[in-house]
Amino acid sequence: MNQAAKRPFQDRMDALQARLLEMAGETEALLATALDALRGRSADGARRVIAGDAVVDSLEVGIDEASLEILALEQPMAIDLRQILATLKISNDLERVGDHSVKIANATLRLAELRPVPAFPQLEEMTGLAPEMLAQALRSFTTKDPELARSVRARDDAMDDLRTASHRILVSHMLEDPRRISPALELIHVSQSLERVADLATNIAEETVFLVEGQVIRHQPETFPSP
Amino acid sequence: MNQAAKRPFQDRMDALQARLLEMAGETEALLATALDALRGRSADGARRVIAGDAVVDSLEVGIDEASLEILALEQPMAIDLRQILATLKISNDLERVGDHSVKIANATLRLAELRPVPAFPQLEEMTGLAPEMLAQALRSFTTKDPELARSVRARDDAMDDLRTASHRILVSHMLEDPRRISPALELIHVSQSLERVADLATNIAEETVFLVEGQVIRHQPETFPSP
Repeated sequence: MNQAAKRPFQDRMDALQARLLEMAGETEALLATALDALRGRSADGARRVIAGDAVVDSLEVGIDEASLEILALEQPMAIDLRQILATLKISNDLERVGDHSVKIANATLRLAELRPVPAFPQLEEMTGLAPEMLAQALRSFTTKDPELARSVRARDDAMDDLRTASHRILVSHMLEDPRRISPALELIHVSQSLERVADLATNIAEETVFLVEGQVIRHQPETFPSP
Repeated sequence: MNQAAKRPFQDRMDALQARLLEMAGETEALLATALDALRGRSADGARRVIAGDAVVDSLEVGIDEASLEILALEQPMAIDLRQILATLKISNDLERVGDHSVKIANATLRLAELRPVPAFPQLEEMTGLAPEMLAQALRSFTTKDPELARSVRARDDAMDDLRTASHRILVSHMLEDPRRISPALELIHVSQSLERVADLATNIAEETVFLVEGQVIRHQPETFPSP
């Protein structure tokens, strides 16, 4: 048995959570860089995001391996098991947020070559709401706060409405001026990625509720009042 | 301790695999129905997909619970642990295939109201390749065949090329005739969902390689020859 295997259980659990927090920080920074690059039409920023996603990917692989090691070498109790399974799911959600940041960066690179579409508030609002929901979901997980987690889920409806409105506006630009078809299509893809980031934040919030209350709220209608 | 808790370990593992196979069957049927409805512009078929996704969702929740129960009540050895973690990941991938089937069904409902876009072979080919890759990936998992799994991954590049070609064709339809903007946009979304199904099939194949060989091939460049 190697040195690592002799570490006390709680040390391993703490190290696993520290890795997840590191991954969360890297993912939030990647998304923020992608959104700054989108707003400023910065090709340099977009390229940094595309290169930086490898860090998020390798953190996910490390979390998978560390989780498997704990499960194999220790016999975690039910509450710790839940924590490990939630960590695995959340690291997978974060990896997908990283993928969407790359998609936004790729769209930004293509948009830099295209005629700009006039800005509109719904898309701007989505670029603010998605990282906010992600930050809130991650805070609800680290502070084990199911009420905060539920408030993330409630905001997801606002995101869906913004996506529908953005879609309608972008299609009307396409209909008015064929030269706007390609750039509007890129922004439709960006708005889809932002909606998906909000969905992934909602997944993280739902994992938190499950972890704290043992209640599966995925695939269930909302039964709690919106804030 | 209830009756369920007294079941021998291997019975529980077999039951878990049976649930995953059931979920795989339901998911493949849902995707097939969605693609038939798309080809035949069948609103009835599309509505059956939208209603049927709840079955896939509830199977995923059941697999999560059964996995947690095995981990909590038994002390699975490393190989069984890997099998359980792979099952959790694959059931999550299948749930996402279900979500994409619903997206295709929703697009089909909207397309039924719109002027048709002329058919083209690349999209037709994607509707054949995506379910084939999924079936192959699931077979590689159940038969523990890493070579079959690697061949799924190799086909993912063909899918990406078809998606790029479809995108170009659909944008040219939009540019030629503004009345085709909305239906072409729906088909762009369909082609994205098909590409995502192929990605999820590739995930399942990569889980299989990891399970059999203990080697993480996610986030790694392809180093094996294509077939």
